[in-house]
Amino acid sequence: MENNVDIESEGTEKMERNGSAFDERDMIREPLLLKSRVNTTSQIAIVGANVCPIESLDYDYYQAFAALAGCNVALATCAAVLCAYIAPAAAGSGIPEVKAYLNGVDAHSILAPSTLFVKIFGSIFGVAAGFVVGKEGPMVHTGACIANLLGQGGSRKYHITWNWLRFFKNDRDRRDLITCGAAAGVAAAFRAPVGGVLFALEEAASWWRSALLWRTFFTTAVVAVVLKSLIEYCKNGQCGLFGDGGLIMFNINNSIPAYNTIDLLAIMLLGIIGGIFGSIYNYLVDKVLRTYSIINERGPGFRVLLVIIISILTSCCAYGVPWLARCIPCPSNLKEECPTKGRSGSYKSFQCPDGHYNDLASLLLTTNDDAIRSLFSSLNTNEFRITSLIFFFVAMYFLGIITYGIAIPSGLFIPVILAGASYGRLVGRLLSPIANLDVGLFALLGAASFLGGTMRMTVSLCVILLELTNNLLMLPLMMLVLLISKTVADCFNKGVYDQIVVMKGLPFLEAHAEPYMRQLVAGDVVSGPLITFSGVEKVGNIVHSLRMTSHNGFPVIDEPPISDAPELCGLVLRSHLLVLLKGKIFTAHRRLSGAETLKRYHAFDFAKAGSGKGLKLEDLEINPEEMEMYVDLHPITNTSPYTVVETMSLAKAAVAFRELGLRHLCVVPKTPGRPPIVGILTRHDFMPEHILGLYPHIDPHK
Amino acid sequence: MENNVDIESEGTEKMERNGSAFDERDMIREPLLLKSRVNTTSQIAIVGANVCPIESLDYDYYQAFAALAGCNVALATCAAVLCAYIAPAAAGSGIPEVKAYLNGVDAHSILAPSTLFVKIFGSIFGVAAGFVVGKEGPMVHTGACIANLLGQGGSRKYHITWNWLRFFKNDRDRRDLITCGAAAGVAAAFRAPVGGVLFALEEAASWWRSALLWRTFFTTAVVAVVLKSLIEYCKNGQCGLFGDGGLIMFNINNSIPAYNTIDLLAIMLLGIIGGIFGSIYNYLVDKVLRTYSIINERGPGFRVLLVIIISILTSCCAYGVPWLARCIPCPSNLKEECPTKGRSGSYKSFQCPDGHYNDLASLLLTTNDDAIRSLFSSLNTNEFRITSLIFFFVAMYFLGIITYGIAIPSGLFIPVILAGASYGRLVGRLLSPIANLDVGLFALLGAASFLGGTMRMTVSLCVILLELTNNLLMLPLMMLVLLISKTVADCFNKGVYDQIVVMKGLPFLEAHAEPYMRQLVAGDVVSGPLITFSGVEKVGNIVHSLRMTSHNGFPVIDEPPISDAPELCGLVLRSHLLVLLKGKIFTAHRRLSGAETLKRYHAFDFAKAGSGKGLKLEDLEINPEEMEMYVDLHPITNTSPYTVVETMSLAKAAVAFRELGLRHLCVVPKTPGRPPIVGILTRHDFMPEHILGLYPHIDPHK
Repeated sequence: MENNVDIESEGTEKMERNGSAFDERDMIREPLLLKSRVNTTSQIAIVGANVCPIESLDYDYYQAFAALAGCNVALATCAAVLCAYIAPAAAGSGIPEVKAYLNGVDAHSILAPSTLFVKIFGSIFGVAAGFVVGKEGPMVHTGACIANLLGQGGSRKYHITWNWLRFFKNDRDRRDLITCGAAAGVAAAFRAPVGGVLFALEEAASWWRSALLWRTFFTTAVVAVVLKSLIEYCKNGQCGLFGDGGLIMFNINNSIPAYNTIDLLAIMLLGIIGGIFGSIYNYLVDKVLRTYSIINERGPGFRVLLVIIISILTSCCAYGVPWLARCIPCPSNLKEECPTKGRSGSYKSFQCPDGHYNDLASLLLTTNDDAIRSLFSSLNTNEFRITSLIFFFVAMYFLGIITYGIAIPSGLFIPVILAGASYGRLVGRLLSPIANLDVGLFALLGAASFLGGTMRMTVSLCVILLELTNNLLMLPLMMLVLLISKTVADCFNKGVYDQIVVMKGLPFLEAHAEPYMRQLVAGDVVSGPLITFSGVEKVGNIVHSLRMTSHNGFPVIDEPPISDAPELCGLVLRSHLLVLLKGKIFTAHRRLSGAETLKRYHAFDFAKAGSGKGLKLEDLEINPEEMEMYVDLHPITNTSPYTVVETMSLAKAAVAFRELGLRHLCVVPKTPGRPPIVGILTRHDFMPEHILGLYPHIDPHK
Repeated sequence: MENNVDIESEGTEKMERNGSAFDERDMIREPLLLKSRVNTTSQIAIVGANVCPIESLDYDYYQAFAALAGCNVALATCAAVLCAYIAPAAAGSGIPEVKAYLNGVDAHSILAPSTLFVKIFGSIFGVAAGFVVGKEGPMVHTGACIANLLGQGGSRKYHITWNWLRFFKNDRDRRDLITCGAAAGVAAAFRAPVGGVLFALEEAASWWRSALLWRTFFTTAVVAVVLKSLIEYCKNGQCGLFGDGGLIMFNINNSIPAYNTIDLLAIMLLGIIGGIFGSIYNYLVDKVLRTYSIINERGPGFRVLLVIIISILTSCCAYGVPWLARCIPCPSNLKEECPTKGRSGSYKSFQCPDGHYNDLASLLLTTNDDAIRSLFSSLNTNEFRITSLIFFFVAMYFLGIITYGIAIPSGLFIPVILAGASYGRLVGRLLSPIANLDVGLFALLGAASFLGGTMRMTVSLCVILLELTNNLLMLPLMMLVLLISKTVADCFNKGVYDQIVVMKGLPFLEAHAEPYMRQLVAGDVVSGPLITFSGVEKVGNIVHSLRMTSHNGFPVIDEPPISDAPELCGLVLRSHLLVLLKGKIFTAHRRLSGAETLKRYHAFDFAKAGSGKGLKLEDLEINPEEMEMYVDLHPITNTSPYTVVETMSLAKAAVAFRELGLRHLCVVPKTPGRPPIVGILTRHDFMPEHILGLYPHIDPHK
């Protein structure tokens, strides 16, 4: 009893010391790589080191669990409060939102500075709270947020502005910048610069041009150099866990694969398993997300509560599941410490006697990075028991599913890699008598297969995994497994990010036109009463139209006497109209006053403001007299809008809309003698829901 | 004297034996990797092994040179004859042509089966003849040719056809297939599957879509698996030189770089050198190509003559330059043979006594692959003398320039890598006392810098070099050097492939609109008399128009009584008109007969034929009576052509033309009461020469 008490106080003391170390050392210098489990692990190790059949021991275990769960819940609550009250947009991975943004969907405050703040700190707290979440998705979102902040010239609200950044104030450069940000996120998260470029190309960007390839490459090169310098600076271990493994996070280059037919068959099997598990995973994530969204809509309190419940569940798993494992004697010819003493290491003692380790604890009560490293390791084939791998897989698979969608920033890569690596290693263990490849390589291929099955990327995943593991000889196998798992999974449903985009109701424009669009023409889907302005329009009409509709683009029509017959002059944007109205260059009569406008304004006055930053209708103060005056819209009219004839096939109109990256597409009449414009097509008019709502008899699959 | 004679006959015998080995063993199983220098090297080695101050020795040396030059000239003549007489399109790298094809330029017989044949065998002969040329460009072209053969359903001329391939008979799928072929070429040439995908994306393709990423990835995965299997099969050396180095051609993974500031500065210097050398290289290649094209136009005989002259010059270099080097004693702690006996190896004896080697001979009288491997090798820092590296660089630089453009299939990668690696290694040698990186890594970075300076690719070069060398830790340095060299070189001129495209006069559409296009509108560049057809047109008119013009697309206009007023019905293609006319569904009077046409024809009847394969006007036999009859064009009219208004900014019209991948863009009038179409814009109307010819006062740079 005496002894126990001592240990207990020592434990607490140690935890406190660790706690302060946490605050002072890691938190400040390298917060992103921190996990709080680290603290509790050593606590448990100390408790576990005293396995003896005395009744008070149970009490110790409960206390250890309380410490673990308490820390986790506290950290989780911090993350959840930040996320639920400050920036709800920061929840989740962020990759679907970035993807939608780059497709042209500017969802509310998705790249705002508050989102950035919550994404960074929420991710630190979330990962530290021991959730089965990654930091990769949030880092992509973080990169995009920083890029957006630069793209809109800093933040006036937070008093950080740079004037030279105004050159980015247009849609295209901002889009490029955010693509680079996303690439930088992946490059930093995986230390994979080429992988980052390819991720941006394959998954994030909707439009690609060669200049962008060069820009993302430059961005990720800078990331690589900065990372390398930081790793050099931190190589003496003064930055906590940051810099482990150098530029290659999970180096498995030592093992040279020479595979036989059985290996190839096993790899195909892995691909199929990955595809099936992946599509089920996506299905369940979708269901869980829909359930959570009902809870989340009830208010921030419910969101925090949900996070706390999941946190407790995760702690129960992390602490409870290792009890299912039996103690394994430490292997003799080991370079590593066994059992591990300290914060990181592969062999956790947990409740085992000296010279033994608990393999499930080694996977669950460590950082995710260390768990992946252990699974990919080829050093000790029998490090993990088969039953342990099954338990771990089940835990990761389902914890991953139920964790995604709660109000914390949560990446999907790490849970998927963990689950994939565990079943891959399991297959490797089962086949070890007949297979040539070792269990570590099987774990890697398992991770690849599950990533392919959930995310459905190919080249970028392949390169990211190569850059993670530095084993180019695995390339053909990796390609094979990714191709198989993607093909299998594509038979069932869409990739997880695409599913989330659909679930969030973001109007994402697919790259290809749907087949049923060939049966329709552009004129068929034009909807709503068309509001047009005259080339010189009465101010009151403009203000009224702006107030009554939420349209962002209005056609301008020149009528006699300005032209011989009514003709389409072009398109004006709401934001430009507001700037023009604020300038109040009005005339009493209907006459052209464009020269004056051109003198007064500079192109930068019409530059695109940050989302939610531009002028609003309420900002205008126009008195009744001015309402009766006229304003010349010609200087702000885009006189070269893209047009299609009303009888144009809808599929071809959709291709033009998508390929040219349009927001408005004017539909003009085919026959003369009618008003010069039939309507305007926007993104929403191409959405399947809209079209199938208008024409319910159309078979969407034909 | 006796001795000499013996040796001589032994040499001849050996050469003969080698020669037969060449025929039987290598030629059949793995012809692409063969170099004939191999034979002559052992010949020289034998002669060189007998260095003694006797007067007859000179005679031996001359004889050896005659053997070397004779073999080279014979092989070169074979390549030149194939190229000059059978398929002139097979000369050169082929990458510019493939690039232009994927941009929409279908140059004459560039992907024909005869070109394929000459490309394969010409490349074998050319590389074997000891030219400073690579096999990489030709392999890309070969891949594209094979893809084209598949895409047009085989070749009817050579009696290899597959009916199921008819699904590829449309522009888009054929384009995709050829992109995959180009990717497969790079993947096979460098054993770099991911590099192949990226090459296709960055350099070859003009339009990219995500489905294509997946398809190229699949293709290169198959290439990787096939390569791996062949290497496995050949690992006992039964395929000659094929399979050296396994999947990684130049493995330098053993050296772990830990670089300091001096290294970084040196690398930046390398990048700048690479950029400058690269742009000068491109400039000189352009000048030489223009000179050669004058010679080449004189006839096939002159082409062959030029090849023979260059071949003799190359032999003189290969045999003469090593005399400039002094003999170096073999290093003692060497695993390799020194001097080398046999076909491949790093230490050639040449004229040196036993235990010595000639470093220039080791670079010049070996296969290009072995020379690159020696240059990249870190094993012996002092393997090559500084002066030797300078001589070698100069030789490679200028031989590379004068060899490209002669009538043999010639890749640019290998000469560029050789020259780049030599100055890189030179810089490494000079800095070896203060630099951390070894000479092999400097050679690699030098090769990267020169590649970046000439070809101006970034991501794909980076990945190709990584896959060649399997050293991921070099990634940040490689990115840095590529970025610097590309940036420096871009200040002076365009990439070498772009230059060649321009020089060949191929109407390549740039991805971006030129700035001066903003000053013009679409109507400004419409040229020529417009030929339109009525919806139901007289056969004679159609035949006449087809005969008189070479237009490929004709607008169809519906006139009363078919419509109320003249309106644009759509666009018909020449090829479809010919198919329709051949069917002879004519009517005596002007009436709609489309239903009958639709019954008679199937969509496949109008499928795009292979280049130069479709119906020709001369194939039609239409008698004078039929000429007076009418034909209904509605069934074959594309009723949804993309249109722009005549007042549309030319820059925006160019963007639409490029992004939508159009061949014809209809320009419609803005004001009513005029004919419903103003003109048709084709690729040629967007060419700078055309526009600046019409408007010479426009500043092309503003």
